[in-house]
Amino acid sequence: MKLVTAVIKPHRLDEVRAALETFGVSGMTVTEASGYGRQKGHTEVYRGAEYEVDLVPKVRVEIVVDDADVDDIVDVVVKSAHTGKIGDGKVWVVPVETVVRVRTGEHGPEAL
Amino acid sequence: MKLVTAVIKPHRLDEVRAALETFGVSGMTVTEASGYGRQKGHTEVYRGAEYEVDLVPKVRVEIVVDDADVDDIVDVVVKSAHTGKIGDGKVWVVPVETVVRVRTGEHGPEAL
Amino acid sequence: MKLVTAVIKPHRLDEVRAALETFGVSGMTVTEASGYGRQKGHTEVYRGAEYEVDLVPKVRVEIVVDDADVDDIVDVVVKSAHTGKIGDGKVWVVPVETVVRVRTGEHGPEAL
Ligand SMILES: Nc1ncnc2c1ncn2[C@@H]1O[C@H](COP(=O)(O)OP(=O)(O)OP(=O)(O)O)[C@@H](O)[C@H]1O
Ligand SMILES: Nc1ncnc2c1ncn2[C@@H]1O[C@H](COP(=O)(O)OP(=O)(O)OP(=O)(O)O)[C@@H](O)[C@H]1O
Ligand SMILES: Nc1ncnc2c1ncn2[C@@H]1O[C@H](COP(=O)(O)OP(=O)(O)OP(=O)(O)O)[C@@H](O)[C@H]1O
Ligand SMILES: [Mg+2]
Ligand SMILES: [Mg+2]
Ligand SMILES: [Mg+2]
Repeated sequence: MKLVTAVIKPHRLDEVRAALETFGVSGMTVTEASGYGRQKGHTEVYRGAEYEVDLVPKVRVEIVVDDADVDDIVDVVVKSAHTGKIGDGKVWVVPVETVVRVRTGEHGPEAL
Repeated sequence: MKLVTAVIKPHRLDEVRAALETFGVSGMTVTEASGYGRQKGHTEVYRGAEYEVDLVPKVRVEIVVDDADVDDIVDVVVKSAHTGKIGDGKVWVVPVETVVRVRTGEHGPEAL
Repeated sequence: MKLVTAVIKPHRLDEVRAALETFGVSGMTVTEASGYGRQKGHTEVYRGAEYEVDLVPKVRVEIVVDDADVDDIVDVVVKSAHTGKIGDGKVWVVPVETVVRVRTGEHGPEAL
């Protein structure tokens, strides 16, 4: 299994979530975050306000997925988060050794 | 070393934390999050309110642990987070290559 | 590539961020968090208030970096986050298998 983490523009969350549900993703975890990418000195616009020095608000999405699905899911996230403007976000994938579903105690892919 | 991440019901945090301390866990990091699991279209109850479409509030707990302890710690988290109702949460384990304690500069398991 | 996660004192964030930019880090993600380390029963001071039982506010910083830079970047974070007092923080490193830049679709190190 893999953990896909995506840091995206907050106003793309509904789009990303809908695309993931359509794909059949079984769950996701969302955290509020902020950050910057390559345009450190440049401005980025968020809700009409320009952010120059400060960190720009972002949403951090985590999805634990089966190995077989990881490439497709990264693709779904990238396409649904995309606006074409700077600050669109970053997605990274990390290996997962164990997953447990708390209610049932199931381990492994069937815990997803 | 391993990173254990648990996304649990907020009202179970004190229970989980107490169980981890009893086990002897040396530290943990807590973040507010929200999410959904398999019951996307179903309702889940949080503080008396039903959540149908929206993301349900959760707490995200991270614990960096020694390899020797990881199975026990996952078990402690799963048992202490468990209520038996849907939405109880998910736990996943990721490999950790390096840990550093900032104050002392110690690396590796002794940094925990 | 690697994911460096640092849980630090909130008032050190500007220092850490400046040090990372000076080093040439291309981006970072920041989340508000709280936690405890080894001094569970002891007090830790945050903004003049003593925290004894409760979780102490921290900032969680994530940086996806190239393999060649990871040791230097961990060092930069540890040095810039350091105050010498308890609660200075923890840094851990996790392997990353894929990174994608959402705007361009670039994969791998050039996506950073
Ligand atoms: N190396 C990184 N490590 C961790 N998080 C990052 C990194 N780079 C970017 N991020 C996160 O992703 C968010 C969006 O980054 P962003 O899309 O601006 O990347 P970019 O490489 O500058 O691409 P673009 O040129 O399209 O703006 C940032 O606000 C930050 O939260
Ligand atoms: N695949 C996943 N990836 C990332 N986070 C997840 C995933 N599945 C669930 N979560 C997180 O865990 C929380 C709790 O999930 P939940 O316990 O509802 O899982 P479930 O598989 O639906 O189990 P149950 O049938 O017991 O409800 C979610 O709100 C979400 O934050
Ligand atoms: N094992 C751990 N797993 C996850 N997070 C941790 C762990 N230990 C500490 N942390 C996080 O790092 C923060 C700072 O920890 P802290 O610096 O107090 O560690 P420590 O080992 O007690 O070192 P010190 O003796 O210098 O206080 C904690 O508030 C918590 O958020
Ligand atoms: Mg950018
Ligand atoms: Mg569920
Ligand atoms: Mg401490």
